[in-house]
Amino acid sequence: MKQIAILGSTGSIGTQTLDIVRENSDIHVCALSAGKNVELMEKQIREFSPELVSMSTPEAAEDLRNRVRDINVKIVSGMEGLIEVATIEKSEILVTGIVGMIGIRPTIEAIKCGKKIALANKETLVTAGHIIMPLLKEYNTDILPVDSEHSAIFQSLQGSPRSRLSKIILTASGGPFRGKNKADLASMRAKDALKHPNWSMGQKVTIDSASLVNKGLEVMEAHWLFDVAIDDIQVLIHPQSILHSAVEYVDGAVIGQMGAPDMKLPIEYALFYPDRRPLSCGKKMNFYDIPSLTFERPDMDTFEGLALALQAGKRGGSLPTVFNAANELAVKLFLEDRISFLQIYDLIRSSMEHHKVIDMPGVDDILAAEAETYEYIKALL
Amino acid sequence: MKQIAILGSTGSIGTQTLDIVRENSDIHVCALSAGKNVELMEKQIREFSPELVSMSTPEAAEDLRNRVRDINVKIVSGMEGLIEVATIEKSEILVTGIVGMIGIRPTIEAIKCGKKIALANKETLVTAGHIIMPLLKEYNTDILPVDSEHSAIFQSLQGSPRSRLSKIILTASGGPFRGKNKADLASMRAKDALKHPNWSMGQKVTIDSASLVNKGLEVMEAHWLFDVAIDDIQVLIHPQSILHSAVEYVDGAVIGQMGAPDMKLPIEYALFYPDRRPLSCGKKMNFYDIPSLTFERPDMDTFEGLALALQAGKRGGSLPTVFNAANELAVKLFLEDRISFLQIYDLIRSSMEHHKVIDMPGVDDILAAEAETYEYIKALL
Repeated sequence: MKQIAILGSTGSIGTQTLDIVRENSDIHVCALSAGKNVELMEKQIREFSPELVSMSTPEAAEDLRNRVRDINVKIVSGMEGLIEVATIEKSEILVTGIVGMIGIRPTIEAIKCGKKIALANKETLVTAGHIIMPLLKEYNTDILPVDSEHSAIFQSLQGSPRSRLSKIILTASGGPFRGKNKADLASMRAKDALKHPNWSMGQKVTIDSASLVNKGLEVMEAHWLFDVAIDDIQVLIHPQSILHSAVEYVDGAVIGQMGAPDMKLPIEYALFYPDRRPLSCGKKMNFYDIPSLTFERPDMDTFEGLALALQAGKRGGSLPTVFNAANELAVKLFLEDRISFLQIYDLIRSSMEHHKVIDMPGVDDILAAEAETYEYIKALL
Repeated sequence: MKQIAILGSTGSIGTQTLDIVRENSDIHVCALSAGKNVELMEKQIREFSPELVSMSTPEAAEDLRNRVRDINVKIVSGMEGLIEVATIEKSEILVTGIVGMIGIRPTIEAIKCGKKIALANKETLVTAGHIIMPLLKEYNTDILPVDSEHSAIFQSLQGSPRSRLSKIILTASGGPFRGKNKADLASMRAKDALKHPNWSMGQKVTIDSASLVNKGLEVMEAHWLFDVAIDDIQVLIHPQSILHSAVEYVDGAVIGQMGAPDMKLPIEYALFYPDRRPLSCGKKMNFYDIPSLTFERPDMDTFEGLALALQAGKRGGSLPTVFNAANELAVKLFLEDRISFLQIYDLIRSSMEHHKVIDMPGVDDILAAEAETYEYIKALL
């Protein structure tokens, strides 16, 4: 029996991970964490029988305790609770489906306990890749990427010598605003951005997809995960989201992973790697039925978030943290209709310009850079 | 120093293999064979210094001997000569770039000497797959496919458990007659068929590509190479020849190999497998520059050669030999303008109907089925 723990079990990645657990009798969830959705967590406890659950606040934890008095489950809360879930002895794999920099500490602690990380939390590598990657070596464990793009790259890297990799081709749907110019973008509201053409995702990720910030974060993530220079990662707009990403080798061979846009595939691949399991709940693609596949160069003048991300990634140090934190807050403000779409880019750019980069930041420096960025933006508004 | 031998060194595969040898100082050609092109063979001897060379006839061999009196090289001829080249002790890999069933015996003898086979000779597996595949096991050696499609499949199979393969997606450009109907095909002449849109190949292969017979032979080859049922091999028309073929796993993941249409890549992959070498003489593809990729179901009513091939492949035994021999002779007659394009299909169909299938034919039965088919067709005309 393979035991796993999930951070963010009520979110998009979390619930899809549980769909896979439901389908495979040889995998069991021993610990779950969520924010405040006690109703869904109660259902998950009743269906999956975890022995440990963490909620974000003591209040949510107390509410949950009252709902499941009839069940033997330990309920904790806060950062301590997250770390308890991440490091629970029984589990072999930690699925980090949590959004935001809150995922960094639990991920680090899980690595120190030798857990494999099924990584869906972008912020971990974007902000702390220089800490995480050596730590994986030290504790002799691995990250299994859950993002569809990074999973596609990871799948395409199996079976060829890594030293022969020449570049990564990271695909992007282009999001709901593909083809628009700056004037168009200026008038876009949250409701426009939330209509993603291909993937079903959380709100934050959907806005990041519309702004191409998401792709910028993914470039930084790929840089750390696969030890490839930012300049050797080509972002490719591919509106049909059939080619999930690819790699090119020194001989010119491009190996890519294709399929229906369905997050269950990369999640399942991470959970059972290097095996592949039948995916009865997943969609299959038939080339006879698909439209033509098209590819475009990303418009980085209009979608400045991508250009800023590449800049942050190349500079490194604490700058990716600032990029990410500024975006996180800006997206929140945009979702609340307090700033315009292009102001997301303005706030990121301005925060990056204002920040004095620290070269090899520790976790405390990273969290401080995040806090500093939040304060800087709040002071601006 | 890796030593290789080449059957068909003056042909398309042979000369491209030598291009790769020219670029890699740690590989040497110890033996070559060709048909009657003594002029090119003389050049190859002077450049690559093989110790053994075979020509198809004693006359060509004698002509060649007179040309290279100043060089220490043994020159032989005929089937005995081919087998001597195929089994030369020094060589580790035999590249079978020869066209036709003439390749079967030398390939079998090479396997018995433990040589790896870089296979470009379709007829070997199509007609004798049931003999070759067990022989590879017995002599503990391997076939490394050189066809671009089979190489793409082979590359896509690296790094995932073979038991999880669910289907093969074999791409086809569709050839110069793609989109045409039966009435169009009826009037096609050899010169029309010889204009292949993407690949530079020999005449026989180019006609086979126009008739989709080539794809039918490739389905049978893939069936043997990868131990996949004919029904689990999907032929996919893909006019841009960028996706060279792909495989689908049980989880719905499709892994495919893409790249510029250049035979050097699969040849090099076979020679250096599992490594990949920089291909300085090869073309690289950039997704920013490629047109859209399109996919179609093959029109098997019009391109009946493919339907007949699947039928032959499913029935097995000596029927694929008859299919292949009938096509070989029919293409020869078509190239000589003695029959029409659609008569290629008529002759294949009629030969298959006429033949009494032998279930597990030995090499002699296979060669007899070939001879019988030639005689049957000659009597028809």
